[in-house]
Amino acid sequence: MNLSINDFRYTYPSERLLMGPGPSNCAPRVLQAMANPCIGHLDPQFLAIMDETQQLLRFLFQTKNPLTIPVSGTGSAGMEAALVNMIEPGDEAVICVNGVFGVRMTEIVQRIGGKLTRVDGEWGRAMDPDLVRKAVKGKNPKLLAVVHGETSTGACSDLSTLSSIARECGVLFLVDMVTTLGGINVPIDELGIDVAYSGTQKCISCPPGLSPISFGQRAMEALDRRKAPVMSWYLDMGMLRNYWGNERKYHHTAPINMIYGFREALRIIAEEGLEERFKRHLKNHRALVAGIETMGLSMLVPEKERLPMLNAIKIPEGINDLQVRRDLLNGFGIEIGAGLGPLAGKIWRVGLMGHTSTLRSVLLFLTALETVIKSQGFKPGAGAIEAATTIV
Amino acid sequence: MNLSINDFRYTYPSERLLMGPGPSNCAPRVLQAMANPCIGHLDPQFLAIMDETQQLLRFLFQTKNPLTIPVSGTGSAGMEAALVNMIEPGDEAVICVNGVFGVRMTEIVQRIGGKLTRVDGEWGRAMDPDLVRKAVKGKNPKLLAVVHGETSTGACSDLSTLSSIARECGVLFLVDMVTTLGGINVPIDELGIDVAYSGTQKCISCPPGLSPISFGQRAMEALDRRKAPVMSWYLDMGMLRNYWGNERKYHHTAPINMIYGFREALRIIAEEGLEERFKRHLKNHRALVAGIETMGLSMLVPEKERLPMLNAIKIPEGINDLQVRRDLLNGFGIEIGAGLGPLAGKIWRVGLMGHTSTLRSVLLFLTALETVIKSQGFKPGAGAIEAATTIV
Repeated sequence: MNLSINDFRYTYPSERLLMGPGPSNCAPRVLQAMANPCIGHLDPQFLAIMDETQQLLRFLFQTKNPLTIPVSGTGSAGMEAALVNMIEPGDEAVICVNGVFGVRMTEIVQRIGGKLTRVDGEWGRAMDPDLVRKAVKGKNPKLLAVVHGETSTGACSDLSTLSSIARECGVLFLVDMVTTLGGINVPIDELGIDVAYSGTQKCISCPPGLSPISFGQRAMEALDRRKAPVMSWYLDMGMLRNYWGNERKYHHTAPINMIYGFREALRIIAEEGLEERFKRHLKNHRALVAGIETMGLSMLVPEKERLPMLNAIKIPEGINDLQVRRDLLNGFGIEIGAGLGPLAGKIWRVGLMGHTSTLRSVLLFLTALETVIKSQGFKPGAGAIEAATTIV
Repeated sequence: MNLSINDFRYTYPSERLLMGPGPSNCAPRVLQAMANPCIGHLDPQFLAIMDETQQLLRFLFQTKNPLTIPVSGTGSAGMEAALVNMIEPGDEAVICVNGVFGVRMTEIVQRIGGKLTRVDGEWGRAMDPDLVRKAVKGKNPKLLAVVHGETSTGACSDLSTLSSIARECGVLFLVDMVTTLGGINVPIDELGIDVAYSGTQKCISCPPGLSPISFGQRAMEALDRRKAPVMSWYLDMGMLRNYWGNERKYHHTAPINMIYGFREALRIIAEEGLEERFKRHLKNHRALVAGIETMGLSMLVPEKERLPMLNAIKIPEGINDLQVRRDLLNGFGIEIGAGLGPLAGKIWRVGLMGHTSTLRSVLLFLTALETVIKSQGFKPGAGAIEAATTIV
């Protein structure tokens, strides 16, 4: 096996403003923490870091749930962990689908051998609670699941209403918060959410690789009542509970340096304060929308259903989608996201997540976008920067 | 939810020499690479890094297998990925068990609903090929699986003989190389191995969080012939093949900074050269054993079956295991591993993996151990350092 080491040089990434659907830019402190020397997963110093990480994560989820940990995989591993622990073969799960990540949930339920009831909502809209109620009420499913913020469309569903439907009907309520945790208020205890999971690379602004997850009391009871073993050994929450809890029962080797970075990202969130952080995300979102609409472009999602951290902008007629994204990346170092599935070629997905959610990002993006679409013959309305900077 | 941010201070780990069963110490270059700015998982620069990482990993596995990638989880995720893709409910798997990680494989096979045939070997010994042949021959299992280097005991099984049994009987051969990859010669194509997986935190000396895995042609054919979908969406190798291959079909968001570090760790291995690296591991192992035996202690595993990167030392009568490990950690910053399962309290597991496998580590450990066991009244034989340093 020959290999020329000269083909594999030292590389350092170009400067990027990460305004796609995630990852977002990481604070330098987070990256520095990841570069701290690796220590043993059973070292008392690392055990203390595990404990503190759990405490900080409970603060972020606004929960008292003991089982609140980062799963050792990306957000999709969190989705799988949530579903595979709650659903046994034959259990009925009602899955809300208004985008790519709802579809992913249905695929996982089917692999588990669960009985799937799919509630289809419009892509680019919040889930309609009436549709959901109809699917759950009078039936006896085990679980209702929804993606809080659909990363594929920028739509945000109303957890409060959906949670009350779940309570009313006595079903477990499972929520995907991959995009929303750390960017908008999701007090999971207050909202009556039984299982919630997220990813680290969006509003938490830590590199991808971990999935924060939290199981409430009803979910733990359901876990303890299971008849079949959890299909996944790696994601078995009963075993993970014993590993992260006081027993410290060896399960797998935690991804130590990722957890260093995650703890630091959570410290940054705690320093800023949740309320301040949510306000910042909302304000920069409003600034972006003001600028975009002043330019004569429009948003996909109706105002009241928009995610502040992920902005779906309709691509105007006659504009070359791919060329715009390439020009933004190569000319300005700005990454934005393309549309997915039925929305491919129809929207741009512009993230304002965590560390990236600043007025500076908004203004640079608006300026760059203006330049790029002008070069394709589009005539943007004047005053976008002024519109964005006057938002308070 | 109240939280006092002052309870969560900036932390930096104490200096540790990681001589346990993994993680090993990481080269500073690897840690620096992990701290490079995160970029998008679809950024052309990151796609190039993915390609290079696969090429470097093929070099390390000594394989032409196209599907050779790091799975986005720790070594246990690699084990689950290997088994869950190869075994369908009802498929028979013959699993060799001579330590904790063989047991783990049997648990995973059972969760999948596979038909388990367990071949029990002695803990602390290589698997006996005759026992294995008896379990496979004349039957028609789908797969034979073995842990190459049992991290729980320090024993190394003979892949060449086991592989010929698998070929003879027409079954797939699956090997756990979590501890051995990067430390001893495992040319998987030459050895006729169909599926191999490893971890990053042992002889590769990258923090834990990824699991290098490689599927050969027979394994890919078995994957393509499956009737049931792979139980795990997250670890579905068919989807991962499309994500890591030229299609770049979005599956999950790769753990970008972990992959930076992994690529750098692979570059270090390529620079050293495989042969040099394996020689280094062997020499330092022999130095350690010479010192240990001169001190009057003995090894658990017979000489010919020993792993060079994981040394199981029998704990002498009357010595307080826990106190020794604590004194080594607190007095000298040296981490070693305890025995597991039936070997708890009976052995110490001393790693000499990757970046940690140096004569410097061996000498510091011997000196520290001598001091610590003397303080418990043990009288070590003289000349351990001389014995270690004269090994060539």
